[in-house]
Amino acid sequence: MSRRFDVVIVGGGPAGVITALTARRYYPEKSVVVIRDRQRGIIPCGIPYMFHSLEKPVQNEMGYGMFEEHNIQEIQGKASAIHPEKREIETEESEVIGYKKLVLATGSTPVIPPIDGADLDGVYPIKKDLDYMMDLVRNVESAENVVIVGGGFIGVELADEIADIDGVQVHLIEILPELLGNSFDPEFARLVEQRLLAKGVKVYKNTRLEQFTGNGRISGARLNNNETIPADYAIFGIGAKPNTRLAEQAGLRLFGDSGIWVDEYLRTSHEHIFAVGDCVVKRDFFTRDKTPVMLASTATAEARIAGANLYKLKVVREIKGTIAIYATYVDGLVLGSAGLTEQSARAEEFEIIVGRAESPDKHPGKLPNTHTCRVKLVFSGNSETILGGQVAGGPSCGEMINTIGTAIQKRMSRAEFETLQMATHPYLTAAPTKYPLVIAAQNASPVK
Amino acid sequence: MSRRFDVVIVGGGPAGVITALTARRYYPEKSVVVIRDRQRGIIPCGIPYMFHSLEKPVQNEMGYGMFEEHNIQEIQGKASAIHPEKREIETEESEVIGYKKLVLATGSTPVIPPIDGADLDGVYPIKKDLDYMMDLVRNVESAENVVIVGGGFIGVELADEIADIDGVQVHLIEILPELLGNSFDPEFARLVEQRLLAKGVKVYKNTRLEQFTGNGRISGARLNNNETIPADYAIFGIGAKPNTRLAEQAGLRLFGDSGIWVDEYLRTSHEHIFAVGDCVVKRDFFTRDKTPVMLASTATAEARIAGANLYKLKVVREIKGTIAIYATYVDGLVLGSAGLTEQSARAEEFEIIVGRAESPDKHPGKLPNTHTCRVKLVFSGNSETILGGQVAGGPSCGEMINTIGTAIQKRMSRAEFETLQMATHPYLTAAPTKYPLVIAAQNASPVK
Repeated sequence: MSRRFDVVIVGGGPAGVITALTARRYYPEKSVVVIRDRQRGIIPCGIPYMFHSLEKPVQNEMGYGMFEEHNIQEIQGKASAIHPEKREIETEESEVIGYKKLVLATGSTPVIPPIDGADLDGVYPIKKDLDYMMDLVRNVESAENVVIVGGGFIGVELADEIADIDGVQVHLIEILPELLGNSFDPEFARLVEQRLLAKGVKVYKNTRLEQFTGNGRISGARLNNNETIPADYAIFGIGAKPNTRLAEQAGLRLFGDSGIWVDEYLRTSHEHIFAVGDCVVKRDFFTRDKTPVMLASTATAEARIAGANLYKLKVVREIKGTIAIYATYVDGLVLGSAGLTEQSARAEEFEIIVGRAESPDKHPGKLPNTHTCRVKLVFSGNSETILGGQVAGGPSCGEMINTIGTAIQKRMSRAEFETLQMATHPYLTAAPTKYPLVIAAQNASPVK
Repeated sequence: MSRRFDVVIVGGGPAGVITALTARRYYPEKSVVVIRDRQRGIIPCGIPYMFHSLEKPVQNEMGYGMFEEHNIQEIQGKASAIHPEKREIETEESEVIGYKKLVLATGSTPVIPPIDGADLDGVYPIKKDLDYMMDLVRNVESAENVVIVGGGFIGVELADEIADIDGVQVHLIEILPELLGNSFDPEFARLVEQRLLAKGVKVYKNTRLEQFTGNGRISGARLNNNETIPADYAIFGIGAKPNTRLAEQAGLRLFGDSGIWVDEYLRTSHEHIFAVGDCVVKRDFFTRDKTPVMLASTATAEARIAGANLYKLKVVREIKGTIAIYATYVDGLVLGSAGLTEQSARAEEFEIIVGRAESPDKHPGKLPNTHTCRVKLVFSGNSETILGGQVAGGPSCGEMINTIGTAIQKRMSRAEFETLQMATHPYLTAAPTKYPLVIAAQNASPVK
């Protein structure tokens, strides 16, 4: 059986979906099809919240109603080969699908370290598969001890959520000296650690997992200090590697093992083939070197550029490279990070000036539900261009980090921060006299 | 009695305070003094919240502890004359104070329209005076009918708060066709109106107040349709005029009746004299014409520039003109506006393209406390530069408007919005696939 479409997209995650919707918007006359696995879709960033916050885990399903609504076709199946010369792809189900323009949005696969016991029953990598995750949620609810491997975003969010389940003891293992070490400086990361410790999570920093023990199914996790933690379940949250097999077999250029090579417009080395999202190498905004950032927000930004530019370069790519912008929420504490931390700026050999500020996030601070908002800004030492920022505090920090992100993408200077005009309101923000983005810029001074 | 200081600041509102703190930071060796009225200070934007939200109205006091902390002196008194040739000012208390650098932060006075009965007992303009406002709050608590004149920010916030007091009927009178008409397009302003109507506020749009009736004290408000509303108290919230008397007497150049003329660095026409805040003319960011925007956030931005640049131009003014950026909160609904509305852009004869989007402010939208976030962006038609934006929704809109404000100040293009990288998080923001700033930019199309 063989069918032909104008635009064929392989992958039904956020990158694939947004490419399809954008292609539809810019090329209303073209046929658009998404090939995706049979499994039910899931909202990636909502995964931790299936364990406790959502009333029912199934509420984290990613629906595909927008396909019908926007006249996008769907083929359930798994692409197994690309034949660029014939402009066709083949599926495991032996379908042949012709394309004018092909977009690979094949995503990533969770990393599982090569340790003994990683294949025991009860050991779960995080997969973007609704039924698989619902199964894991059900299991964890009856556990006594759950080990989470990896103290990045997914790890700390899982720890926070699972610790809220009655009777479950959470153990969080991180190989680096601090939690969230790639995205926050230690003084911010420790705010998260304090929250987790206060709610009873056992945090093991600077600690390597050596093996999972058990006979057929997991019973414990042995650490590099020879301690063995009891474990009914273990969850890996230590990152993912790009799915590049399909691209590699078709002869597309890769960027080492960091993903599919693409140009500024998400075009691969082969004519008529684009790639977007986790399967694509990410480049750092400041250095243009590869960077291991896999985020739905980056993926959707890429998808919008690819979808618009499939037939003609219609939307000029204005913002280049990934700035690594995140927000997280741990036990009521909100943290955001954008661009370089002090640590990562030093590692890149930037000369830097750093400023800090803190202020109540309402004014007067006597208003109910006032939190302290902490801000740290990192500027380049000589040009005084913003390199990065971190915030911690109440819910408003979730959008505040996007002001910093926008400033990074527009190369704002310290003087511009100092003289920034911002909306302030008693219930919603710090006072104009103390607005912490402004004060942090004002406070910035060289650090050794 | 005569004293001499390096830096003399007239006025103890946010503009004066921030000028003093900034001067102290940049010129640690200079003596700095603030001359201010005897009355207790008040946080201007907190005034509406004294009526209900704050447990005690006195919690809205603006303290002056930072003066002692930062070695800033304080003189209680009222400046009555400047003698530029002698570099001295005189106070009503017959003090003579010498200065090297003088900063006028004399603020503004509420406008009272020339109508009959404006001087009756029970008719109050809003004054930035804690004891005066506490007196008003006490009175209003026992009222049956309160008339608020002016449906701008202060008017709608007062209406919302006073309507929460048991037994008080609020009447809100606005002369223009819509509430908040200078800052929001009608579809946003009506969201506020609906909230006020739903909580029982009587809203009179397109309505002019003709007179207050009463014998010695107010008993009613007569409208231009000849209806008379019963009124125990009336509050004016119809704007303020700059306090320029002192500047005028000293021969400083004024900008018509719009305030004291200053250059980009807040320098007046007289050497060694600066002016900041409400007493200074404001210029529009897009046209550089005068604009009637009086905001603590603009005032503090000016104060930071003046304070840094008193002796040498140390901080280059990077962001020029006021962008009129606001947030407000009415009965749980948050609104923000920055830059030009569709209406104001048309009035300035911009050719425009306009985009809208709405999305749940959490993802999945089934999470508790999810609000709908509405966004409208206005771009110039040809250059596609952002001119303004409006948001409405939950608490996160309070900081989201600052992302738009930053984008305006950095002249962001529609393509940059479309490809923006933003932090998203289930609890804190819309989904990356639906982030409304991005979708609104994508949706933007020309309007007639």
